[in-house]
Amino acid sequence: MQPHLWEAALLAGTVAFAISGAMTAMERALDLLGVLVLGTVTAVGGGIVRDCLLGLTPPGALSRPREALLALSVSLFAFLAAWLAARTGRHAGRWWGAALSLMDAVGLGVFSVSGVQSALSCGHGGNAFLCLFMGVLTGVGGGLMRDVLAMQVPSILHRRIYALASLLGAGGYYLLVQNGVSAAWAMPGAAGAVVLIRLLATRYRWRLPLSPPLFSTRRPPET
Amino acid sequence: MQPHLWEAALLAGTVAFAISGAMTAMERALDLLGVLVLGTVTAVGGGIVRDCLLGLTPPGALSRPREALLALSVSLFAFLAAWLAARTGRHAGRWWGAALSLMDAVGLGVFSVSGVQSALSCGHGGNAFLCLFMGVLTGVGGGLMRDVLAMQVPSILHRRIYALASLLGAGGYYLLVQNGVSAAWAMPGAAGAVVLIRLLATRYRWRLPLSPPLFSTRRPPET
Amino acid sequence: MQPHLWEAALLAGTVAFAISGAMTAMERALDLLGVLVLGTVTAVGGGIVRDCLLGLTPPGALSRPREALLALSVSLFAFLAAWLAARTGRHAGRWWGAALSLMDAVGLGVFSVSGVQSALSCGHGGNAFLCLFMGVLTGVGGGLMRDVLAMQVPSILHRRIYALASLLGAGGYYLLVQNGVSAAWAMPGAAGAVVLIRLLATRYRWRLPLSPPLFSTRRPPET
Repeated sequence: MQPHLWEAALLAGTVAFAISGAMTAMERALDLLGVLVLGTVTAVGGGIVRDCLLGLTPPGALSRPREALLALSVSLFAFLAAWLAARTGRHAGRWWGAALSLMDAVGLGVFSVSGVQSALSCGHGGNAFLCLFMGVLTGVGGGLMRDVLAMQVPSILHRRIYALASLLGAGGYYLLVQNGVSAAWAMPGAAGAVVLIRLLATRYRWRLPLSPPLFSTRRPPET
Repeated sequence: MQPHLWEAALLAGTVAFAISGAMTAMERALDLLGVLVLGTVTAVGGGIVRDCLLGLTPPGALSRPREALLALSVSLFAFLAAWLAARTGRHAGRWWGAALSLMDAVGLGVFSVSGVQSALSCGHGGNAFLCLFMGVLTGVGGGLMRDVLAMQVPSILHRRIYALASLLGAGGYYLLVQNGVSAAWAMPGAAGAVVLIRLLATRYRWRLPLSPPLFSTRRPPET
Repeated sequence: MQPHLWEAALLAGTVAFAISGAMTAMERALDLLGVLVLGTVTAVGGGIVRDCLLGLTPPGALSRPREALLALSVSLFAFLAAWLAARTGRHAGRWWGAALSLMDAVGLGVFSVSGVQSALSCGHGGNAFLCLFMGVLTGVGGGLMRDVLAMQVPSILHRRIYALASLLGAGGYYLLVQNGVSAAWAMPGAAGAVVLIRLLATRYRWRLPLSPPLFSTRRPPET
């Protein structure tokens, strides 16, 4: 895979995560600034926390704000597009949900792998737990912060095979690189596997076992 | 502006933020410790996260706990005052809300500017995005943490011109200082502009455009 | 107290906190991964934030993942046990709640003391505020993150004498060690005091004064 293809995947993931944050904000009827904040947090939040935990300060998302500015622009665009659509009486079509879902899967795959790569670059290759933790954190952290700010039970805690796909991708990348496979091959391979798992999980309605109905006080998350 | 005036503004902001946190805790019927925690988190939470992101550990709010102890004392005082008022059958008058709003605006202005100053002191003057981010984070971060802990959609995401006022103040200070204006003039100027914007926004009911009514599933925040 | 007894207490606390996180996740009907995440976050979340604030990166809970792996295993076990119990029509008995409460008290005591010890080890012995802050953060931070992720008003903000017990234990340990008592004696003493306070508070229904009924808009936390 060429470096510029990798860059393109990283940017596509940023765009998809920013749109998902902006859509969540619009569902909650926040104002323009809320939309911009939630879109940006979703796109760069996971990487910022990861860099803090690795001791990389200031976090890369702030010292090289290209992705953050892209996420801001995308969120603004989403807000304007939604206004335009509302004014012309249109609704988001079915193709829209599918496209968003695909981009979100791309983002999840690319971010999960890049989190592992960050941990490896900091010399933590000997600690598999730490590397996988950083991968999953980078992949799902932004969405987690989005849901907490929007007062929703984080969807990664009950959405079909989402964090698990991130974990499998991070683990696959770690195993490949630790066994001598070049990052140029391992990155697209592992990220692609995440995309595939997500698409299959959505298509065939795979999901992890739910909690048993043991507790009488259980309250379902609002989804 | 004299340094001791600046100090006074910083302390006034701490007091205002602590009171707003304590009042939120009392609205949610928390106990005394919840009131103390929420008051303190609102006052110093933004600065603690900022220092973490800048790599200043332990954060200044912990290594020099003057503001934190002030916030603790103010929260305790607010709790006692509320008990006394409840016992004598009084209610918070209208002047109270106005005074709190003014102090909150002072805190927002001072904290936003001081966040930019922290980033400049760490040598990040060349990165405008990072400096403005730190300004807004310092200004609104504590209130964000207060709302998350009290299970409310963060008010900065939909309150009239709040985070935007913080952003304008941070941007103004950054521009002034980068163009050679002495901090002694730029600080009160930018912080004063934030106060002015907030007061005007409250008086004339300015607000940013809300999200369009596109999504049928939208649920309004609880305010 | 022998070092291996101390180790045992630390592990007991990890187990208790992991179980409390897993039970919260099952109450909210999350899936298997949600149970694992919430159990692990509850057990190691406080220590991770503490290490970040102290500048110890990567946090010890990630660089030496023994506790995190234990918490993961315990959460998985709790999930399986709950399924088994649901299938055989059993309910958690009364002894269960009491045992969990005792282990949780042990965890609170041990973690609070170990947080103070971390701050002392980093050379912050001269700053009592910082040491106590780190103690309480380590003791209650994981439970706070658990409640935020599960969308509940954090129980430490209104639960009977919980954060206060942590504060008293941290303060006691700090005073003992600063006055020359060996850590080998101070640790079990302070941690034991926390356990005692929690048990007495639960038995005799001690609680801190609640907020006064001043504000008409007050909404009680969902508990």
